[in-house]
Amino acid sequence: MALTRTYLDASGSSPMTPRVLEAIRAGFADGWADPRRLHAESRRAQALVEGAREAIAEVLGCPTHEVAFSPSAVIALERTIGAVHTARRGRERIVASAVERDATLHAAHYYAQGRLETVAVDEQGHLDLEAFAAALDYPDVTIAAVQHVNHELGTAQRLDDVHEIAKAHEVPLVVDATASIGHMESPAAWDALVANPADWGGPAGIGVLAIRSRTRWLPAWPERSGWEAGGISVPLVLAAAVALQERVEHRQAVEARMRAMTEWIRSTAATMPGVTVVGDPLERAPHLVTLLCSGVDGEAVLARLDKEGIAVGSGSACEHDGFEPSRVLAAIGSPSTGNVRIGLHPGVDEPMVDRFLALLPRIIGEARADAGLGVPWAGAQHQPSWGRVQH
Amino acid sequence: MALTRTYLDASGSSPMTPRVLEAIRAGFADGWADPRRLHAESRRAQALVEGAREAIAEVLGCPTHEVAFSPSAVIALERTIGAVHTARRGRERIVASAVERDATLHAAHYYAQGRLETVAVDEQGHLDLEAFAAALDYPDVTIAAVQHVNHELGTAQRLDDVHEIAKAHEVPLVVDATASIGHMESPAAWDALVANPADWGGPAGIGVLAIRSRTRWLPAWPERSGWEAGGISVPLVLAAAVALQERVEHRQAVEARMRAMTEWIRSTAATMPGVTVVGDPLERAPHLVTLLCSGVDGEAVLARLDKEGIAVGSGSACEHDGFEPSRVLAAIGSPSTGNVRIGLHPGVDEPMVDRFLALLPRIIGEARADAGLGVPWAGAQHQPSWGRVQH
Repeated sequence: MALTRTYLDASGSSPMTPRVLEAIRAGFADGWADPRRLHAESRRAQALVEGAREAIAEVLGCPTHEVAFSPSAVIALERTIGAVHTARRGRERIVASAVERDATLHAAHYYAQGRLETVAVDEQGHLDLEAFAAALDYPDVTIAAVQHVNHELGTAQRLDDVHEIAKAHEVPLVVDATASIGHMESPAAWDALVANPADWGGPAGIGVLAIRSRTRWLPAWPERSGWEAGGISVPLVLAAAVALQERVEHRQAVEARMRAMTEWIRSTAATMPGVTVVGDPLERAPHLVTLLCSGVDGEAVLARLDKEGIAVGSGSACEHDGFEPSRVLAAIGSPSTGNVRIGLHPGVDEPMVDRFLALLPRIIGEARADAGLGVPWAGAQHQPSWGRVQH
Repeated sequence: MALTRTYLDASGSSPMTPRVLEAIRAGFADGWADPRRLHAESRRAQALVEGAREAIAEVLGCPTHEVAFSPSAVIALERTIGAVHTARRGRERIVASAVERDATLHAAHYYAQGRLETVAVDEQGHLDLEAFAAALDYPDVTIAAVQHVNHELGTAQRLDDVHEIAKAHEVPLVVDATASIGHMESPAAWDALVANPADWGGPAGIGVLAIRSRTRWLPAWPERSGWEAGGISVPLVLAAAVALQERVEHRQAVEARMRAMTEWIRSTAATMPGVTVVGDPLERAPHLVTLLCSGVDGEAVLARLDKEGIAVGSGSACEHDGFEPSRVLAAIGSPSTGNVRIGLHPGVDEPMVDRFLALLPRIIGEARADAGLGVPWAGAQHQPSWGRVQH
C-alpha cells in the first residue's frame, strides 16, 4: 500500500501499530502450540491466553473468569445470544434495538426462530426507552440486545437507563460493544458483552465476550465446541490484548484528539451543500462520523476517494460492505443511500482529515454529475466559497 | 522454548517454518484490512485470500470456487455437516464411522438431533464396508461422514470403496481430511471435505472446506454468517496456503523420510515389553504413530517425557487433550489408556527419534513403578537388553 494512502475506514478494521505487530511476531514464536494440550509448548501458549484474558478483563472491568474468546466478534455475538437464550427456554422472544448490527439481529432471529421484536430509536439513534420497557412487559422475553455505540451513527446508548429497565423486567441485557471498547470508557451496565479486537487496532480473526457470573447460559452448539468453537489463534489473542492495552494507555489523549477531528469533520461537512451529518453530536464515540450526501451513491463517493488515496466506508457498515442501503439510517428516518462512513484511528492526523475535507466537495460534485443530477453541484465545487474547508 | 526441545506432537499443531512465518508477516503488512470492503486496502486483502484459495484448491484437486475458509477446522466440520444435512431435510439420519473425530460426531449428533448411527471398524481401524452399506440402506440418511486418516491410529480409510457405496446409495460423503492433507496424496473420493492448516504447518485459527458443485447444501446458521462465520484472518489464510505449498513441494522426500521414521518407531517400540503399536502398518499416514503402554497412564508418560524435553500427545487426541480414555482405541478393541501419540513434522530428524526411543523404556518403567504396578518393569528397563533401542 502506498505510504501516501489515508485510511479513514477504521471501524472494525484498523491498521496495527508496530507494538501490535511485534506481539503477533512474539505470539507466533512462543504461542504456536495448541493451548489445550499438556506439554511445555502448550502450557506456554496457555499462559499467553491467560495473560491476555486478564488484561482484557481489566479493561472491561470484570473478573478474568467472566471473559472468553471466540474466533470472531460475529461468532461471539451468535454464541452469546444463543447461549443466554437457550438457558431461558420456556421463554421465547428476543427484544433488540432497531439499530443493532446485522449479526445481532440475524443471530436473534435464528435462535428465537423468528420471534424477534425490534424497538424504535429516535432521529439521533437513541433507543425509545418507553417502547423498550413496553416490549419487555411481555413475560416471554429471553434477552434484550442493545449496543453501546452504533457503528454507523456513532451514537452511544444510555445503557444505565437501558439496564435499569432490563433489570426491572429480569431480562438479561446483551451489549454489543464492538464499536466502543478501546475508544472510550468501557460500559458497566451489561449482563453479557461482546467486543471486537479488530476495531481497537488488534487483528481480525478473534472475538471477545464477557458474561457475568450471575447470568445463566447453556451451550447452543455441538457438544464441546464451546465459545472458542474449535480453537482460537493464540498469537491473535495476545495481539488483541496488547492492542487494547496500547489504546487504553493513551486513551484520554487519543480520545480528545479523535473527538476534535470528528467535531471538525462534522462541522465542516455540515456546511457543504446537500451534506448532512447524523448521530448525537455529544453522546457519541470519539472516532466515528457518518455523512449523508444527497443525490449520489455512497459507493460512488467511496470509489472516487479511493482513487485519490483515501479509504472510507459506505453501505450498511455491517458484516458486508457493498451496495445495500443502510438499515440503520432508515431507522433514524434518514436517507439510507449516499452515506460516507469515517472511522478514525490513532494514526490519522489533522492534515489527513483536512485533505479529505478539501477533496470531498469536488468528489461529491463529480459523483452527482455522473449520476446526471449534479450540474449545479458540479459548478458549486469550484466556487471560492469552498475555500473555507481548505484551511 | 529451549532449542533442545523435541516436538513430536505435531498432529493438528505443528511448528511453523521461516517461510510460513514470513507469510504471516507479509500478510499482516498487506492483508490487515477487512476483505469485504470496497477500497484498495480491502481489495488487496481480498486478492491474498483469492490467491490462497487457488493454491489450496490445486492441492485438493478441485476448482477454486469449491473451496471456502472457516475460522477453524472444527467450525468447518460443523458448518459442512450442518449445511449438507439441512439441504436434505425430510431425511434425518447421519451415518459416521465409529472412529471419527469428536467434532464430527458431536456436530452430527447436534444437527441430526441425536439420529446419528456409527459404523464399526476392524482392529486396524478400517471401516466395516458391509456394515456401512447396510447403514446406508435406510432411506433417511443425509450424510455419510468418514475420515481419510484417523488422527490417532494413522490408518487411512479405503475412501474409493467408501465413496462407491455412498454414491450407490445417493448419500453425500463428507470426508474429514484434517490428518492427511499436506502429508500424503490428497483424496479424490469425496463430496465435501474438511482440512486443517494447523496440521500441515500452518497457523491455528483457520479451517478449510471444499464442497463439490454437485453437492447441495443450505445454510444452517444465522443469515449471512456464512462459512466464514463473521470473518477470517487474511494473514492466517495466506500462511495456510504457503505452508501447504511448502509441504507439497517437498512432499515425496518428506513423506519417505517420515515413513522411515515412523516405521522405525513402530518396529522398535514393538520390541519393548508391554508396548504395542496400533493401526494399519501399511495403509497409513506417514507421520502418525500411537503406542499403547500397558500398566500406565499415557499422561504420566507424557509428563515424564515433557521433563526430558520431548513433547508427545496422549488422551483422546480430539478437540481436547487430557485425561479421557481414547474412544478411538476402544473402537478397535484396544486398551484405551496408556496411549502415547506421536506426530512428526519435517523439523524432526533421526537423532531426535532415537533419543525418544532410547528414553521411552526408562520413562515407562518409572511411570509403572509410580503407579505401583511396575516392579518387574522397573527392573527391566535397566537390563542390558534395552540397549537394543539405543543404537
